[in-house]
Amino acid sequence: MEPKPRSASTVTMTQIVLPFHANVAGNMHGGEVMKLMDSAAGVAAARHSLSNVVTASVTQLSFIEPIFVGDLVLCKAELTYTGNTSMEVYVTVDAEDLNRGIIKHVCEGYFFMVALDRNGRPARIPPLLIESEEEQHCYDLARERIKHMKQAKNKSLNC
Amino acid sequence: MEPKPRSASTVTMTQIVLPFHANVAGNMHGGEVMKLMDSAAGVAAARHSLSNVVTASVTQLSFIEPIFVGDLVLCKAELTYTGNTSMEVYVTVDAEDLNRGIIKHVCEGYFFMVALDRNGRPARIPPLLIESEEEQHCYDLARERIKHMKQAKNKSLNC
Amino acid sequence: MEPKPRSASTVTMTQIVLPFHANVAGNMHGGEVMKLMDSAAGVAAARHSLSNVVTASVTQLSFIEPIFVGDLVLCKAELTYTGNTSMEVYVTVDAEDLNRGIIKHVCEGYFFMVALDRNGRPARIPPLLIESEEEQHCYDLARERIKHMKQAKNKSLNC
Amino acid sequence: MEPKPRSASTVTMTQIVLPFHANVAGNMHGGEVMKLMDSAAGVAAARHSLSNVVTASVTQLSFIEPIFVGDLVLCKAELTYTGNTSMEVYVTVDAEDLNRGIIKHVCEGYFFMVALDRNGRPARIPPLLIESEEEQHCYDLARERIKHMKQAKNKSLNC
Amino acid sequence: MEPKPRSASTVTMTQIVLPFHANVAGNMHGGEVMKLMDSAAGVAAARHSLSNVVTASVTQLSFIEPIFVGDLVLCKAELTYTGNTSMEVYVTVDAEDLNRGIIKHVCEGYFFMVALDRNGRPARIPPLLIESEEEQHCYDLARERIKHMKQAKNKSLNC
Amino acid sequence: MEPKPRSASTVTMTQIVLPFHANVAGNMHGGEVMKLMDSAAGVAAARHSLSNVVTASVTQLSFIEPIFVGDLVLCKAELTYTGNTSMEVYVTVDAEDLNRGIIKHVCEGYFFMVALDRNGRPARIPPLLIESEEEQHCYDLARERIKHMKQAKNKSLNC
Repeated sequence: MEPKPRSASTVTMTQIVLPFHANVAGNMHGGEVMKLMDSAAGVAAARHSLSNVVTASVTQLSFIEPIFVGDLVLCKAELTYTGNTSMEVYVTVDAEDLNRGIIKHVCEGYFFMVALDRNGRPARIPPLLIESEEEQHCYDLARERIKHMKQAKNKSLNC
Repeated sequence: MEPKPRSASTVTMTQIVLPFHANVAGNMHGGEVMKLMDSAAGVAAARHSLSNVVTASVTQLSFIEPIFVGDLVLCKAELTYTGNTSMEVYVTVDAEDLNRGIIKHVCEGYFFMVALDRNGRPARIPPLLIESEEEQHCYDLARERIKHMKQAKNKSLNC
Repeated sequence: MEPKPRSASTVTMTQIVLPFHANVAGNMHGGEVMKLMDSAAGVAAARHSLSNVVTASVTQLSFIEPIFVGDLVLCKAELTYTGNTSMEVYVTVDAEDLNRGIIKHVCEGYFFMVALDRNGRPARIPPLLIESEEEQHCYDLARERIKHMKQAKNKSLNC
Repeated sequence: MEPKPRSASTVTMTQIVLPFHANVAGNMHGGEVMKLMDSAAGVAAARHSLSNVVTASVTQLSFIEPIFVGDLVLCKAELTYTGNTSMEVYVTVDAEDLNRGIIKHVCEGYFFMVALDRNGRPARIPPLLIESEEEQHCYDLARERIKHMKQAKNKSLNC
Repeated sequence: MEPKPRSASTVTMTQIVLPFHANVAGNMHGGEVMKLMDSAAGVAAARHSLSNVVTASVTQLSFIEPIFVGDLVLCKAELTYTGNTSMEVYVTVDAEDLNRGIIKHVCEGYFFMVALDRNGRPARIPPLLIESEEEQHCYDLARERIKHMKQAKNKSLNC
Repeated sequence: MEPKPRSASTVTMTQIVLPFHANVAGNMHGGEVMKLMDSAAGVAAARHSLSNVVTASVTQLSFIEPIFVGDLVLCKAELTYTGNTSMEVYVTVDAEDLNRGIIKHVCEGYFFMVALDRNGRPARIPPLLIESEEEQHCYDLARERIKHMKQAKNKSLNC
């Protein structure tokens, strides 16, 4: 399969934060933020693999600043790594205060996705075309994270 | 107030169509499409005016193709016209079939927005900086639409 | 097919505005209003045609007054025009302040609907039975609107 | 306070059943039906009392037929009884199959509502004007139900 | 079929009250409370019968205290009675103020459920194993309620 | 502040998966699962600290099996670690197939929460009372995770 560059699958999902999305404190519910990030990761992975994808794991997801009702949320997802049937997607969230035109970086995390064929079995995907040193650096860090995630799972049984 | 170009406020809102958004036929509910378009129009108008905005009217909104559950919807809003306190926003909707990588133009329409100050009164806004002949052409068509909308309102009383 | 009078398909959809339906300013989201109007138009068109219907276009939709959380919204849809396979529906929205018993006219617009058979092709529908001069007047205005909508579409390419 | 007839507060709430409202079996969720009935009871009680109202109890609520996605639901609420600060509202639900024009009676129940003043204390309300023998009969049955509800509450402690 | 004890099917559903669930007064919508109770009753009945279940009727449902946005709602459902194909479920709702650690009893009611086989016909279910005098007392009261519900239905035609 | 045991704050949130929660494949949306986990983590942290809490980060969240519409989801949250103003919560998700009475472990992850006072500044919380060797083991692993999370953040700038 022909390698595909990161730019071919990068997506920015945008959404206005409504009272519908609010938590008890009146800010955007952390769960709604994660739902948006998961959707964005799914779109980037689907664009790269042109197949169904599922989220296998999420790691190092940080909430940096609160997001307010009325903000425009911009959620960007871009591939950092591909295996034979899996991908890691780096997802960042910015919030734009529309009345003042100020944008803040509010959240980020890593989503590990698996491509599935029509029978629900892992499907081969195109490799990620690495086009710069920075992308190679991101790729190497992704490999470390995936390795660490697997080790950690084995260690932490039932707690 | 300093004129601002169209590009300073143009926005693309994106969203995955979930069963949550479906109509009885299993496609994206027309009302959900209009809700997304209205949000996008509001973002473009708020970015241009840096104030609260309300939708005053919608016209010539066409549904061209159905949108399916699972599609990625891309809803673009860009200013065509500004008055002293009002703006027209042209909103187009594309739908991307993520499994096949095919994008279709599915909907478009015109949203006429008014900027409001903190007391809810119309607020002055920056003029739109026209940067090309095409933008001037769009501006002229917008003026016609707004004029026609006002005439039509006077004519069609109670039906 | 036997002509059917307007009264046979007219419907009033009613709904309490909850925080769920609110926009950032705390009023009913314009998109939620349009969603309700679209549903009401769909009911009137389905009752007239006894078939599936889709919205083809919306025009001259005006937001006249804001609608508040707690209001009872009454959304009336009535046919103004029928073609061979299409209908125009005039939709008006009133909002009732339940604590004071006051009703205000808040929104109105025109929805152009197409009837579909089981294969998704346009389906013949009964003609609208015109029963008064006023209904004939509404019918004539609808024809003008539909004609204008088609002309406008040809003119405004890409803006 | 001047007595008010039943007709002054009777309301019919209508809604299209969307996938959004579905239970696991794909029909309208019983909880969504009850939510709609509760809203309708609240509107009738608010129209009669022109005050805030809360639901105190619900009794003899029967689900007679399933309601399908795509049906138009018509939920009618009408007062049967008033006390000094409380009202009983009879709520019935019909479902209309829009493709066939057939209406079925699907649900009914009794909602006992209390009017509240701005401090959250029970507020006096106008008496219900009884205008026919049938309304008197309904009033008498309501009194029996309310009496039975109170007796039953005392009896069934902790089960 | 082997009798099953009450404890085998008892369930507690829990939920944080979000602005999404609020009524116009900013408390949890009564309809949302009933929806949660209906779900809990359905889970208890499904666990007992290991089949699909539908709600046939609800009676003596009392709202005792308001529930506030931010509260943790705990909704417990437990079987009181079984017939050949039907069950009664007693549902109670507590609300926990998380900032103060205080729990209040806020709502309760009785849900009469019917088990269905795959063709939608009533399905035989295991009898309820009565394990204490208290459970026998609850069973007897349930029988009275069911009998009264049937009598009441015959009496109150059209009001 | 008096140490509090893990059991004093452990909570199980339960929910029926409705079509409302479905993703495009018809299973429970991964984002909805994370939203439920985040809520459960918030409840455990609020019960322990009796204060407002926010999610600071999420790590090692694994999706092990899909969750189907109709399943009962049981989401358990329990404290593993406390610092001066922060807590780690271990969240596990089980799904119960109600028609067959089978429960599967479907998801788990770690939520790092911060307690806030009324001015939004970190608030001191009671220490976690460690009551067994297993709890001490979990505590030690939590400390490692938190340390690793901080190191990782410093390393992975902009990718």
